[in-house]
Amino acid sequence: MPLDEKAQLLRVFIGESDRHGGKPLYEAIVLAARHRGMAGATVLKGMMGYGHSSRLHTASVLRLSEDLPVVVEIVDRPDRIEAFLPELSEVVDGGLITVEEVRVVRYGKEAT
Amino acid sequence: MPLDEKAQLLRVFIGESDRHGGKPLYEAIVLAARHRGMAGATVLKGMMGYGHSSRLHTASVLRLSEDLPVVVEIVDRPDRIEAFLPELSEVVDGGLITVEEVRVVRYGKEAT
Amino acid sequence: MPLDEKAQLLRVFIGESDRHGGKPLYEAIVLAARHRGMAGATVLKGMMGYGHSSRLHTASVLRLSEDLPVVVEIVDRPDRIEAFLPELSEVVDGGLITVEEVRVVRYGKEAT
Repeated sequence: MPLDEKAQLLRVFIGESDRHGGKPLYEAIVLAARHRGMAGATVLKGMMGYGHSSRLHTASVLRLSEDLPVVVEIVDRPDRIEAFLPELSEVVDGGLITVEEVRVVRYGKEAT
Repeated sequence: MPLDEKAQLLRVFIGESDRHGGKPLYEAIVLAARHRGMAGATVLKGMMGYGHSSRLHTASVLRLSEDLPVVVEIVDRPDRIEAFLPELSEVVDGGLITVEEVRVVRYGKEAT
Repeated sequence: MPLDEKAQLLRVFIGESDRHGGKPLYEAIVLAARHRGMAGATVLKGMMGYGHSSRLHTASVLRLSEDLPVVVEIVDRPDRIEAFLPELSEVVDGGLITVEEVRVVRYGKEAT
């Protein structure tokens, strides 16, 4: 039976076409997370959305846009998420960053 | 260092082929959210799933279905999420709506 | 006005190419969930990510990989999620499983 461990889920809502340092912003975030040794990162691609700018993004045939929303997700220990936030805020110019409490039930080959 | 702000993440689990008022339901939800001035909305497309109806939806070659799951996500202040729920419930005929607590770390150009 | 019900969101972070019993692992999880009568399951496909193994997965043209991340999501009552965890842990060899608290605002045709 796996043990419980308190963790946090960091989510970054940005545009697919947002860029940082010559590469897609979502990629820059994933690379920064990996460079920092964060446990993992996942980029989910949205098919429609709008954000802070109130521009409407959609992948529909009628109103095709290059700037679809993406969500970058990182799960790690609370102290490690907290330590990553300042670096992340530097990179994410305009976008929503949320943190929520999660319980890690299992990670990797053995229960944690 | 960014300030913390309590917020809520609203998630709506529906089918991609669900419709409302002549348009896709996910689009109707995004437009309703924008019309109401909600801070943002993101539609994530699933590749497989089943829901309330226990029908199995999948994008695999073998069992292709038009009714893949989609998840609409809206993050805003708790009072604004709460106020949006009755309107949302009118539109979402059959589908799962969940609300969870999140902390907004950063939003837009300046820390919040 | 819909009632509130405490529920849990179970999320499984795995690779798209992970397999179990001759089929994709995400499909095996969805089928196990349905067989057990869980309320629903949704598979979200990632476009980039890395995990426990620190291998970098991406769908970009430059570094195409077959092992993109997927996230399987299941929402149900806490006791039912808890009861599903041992079976799930058997199947998920290497991967992250998280559980978080959510509030079900509406489910199916009538408010719950």
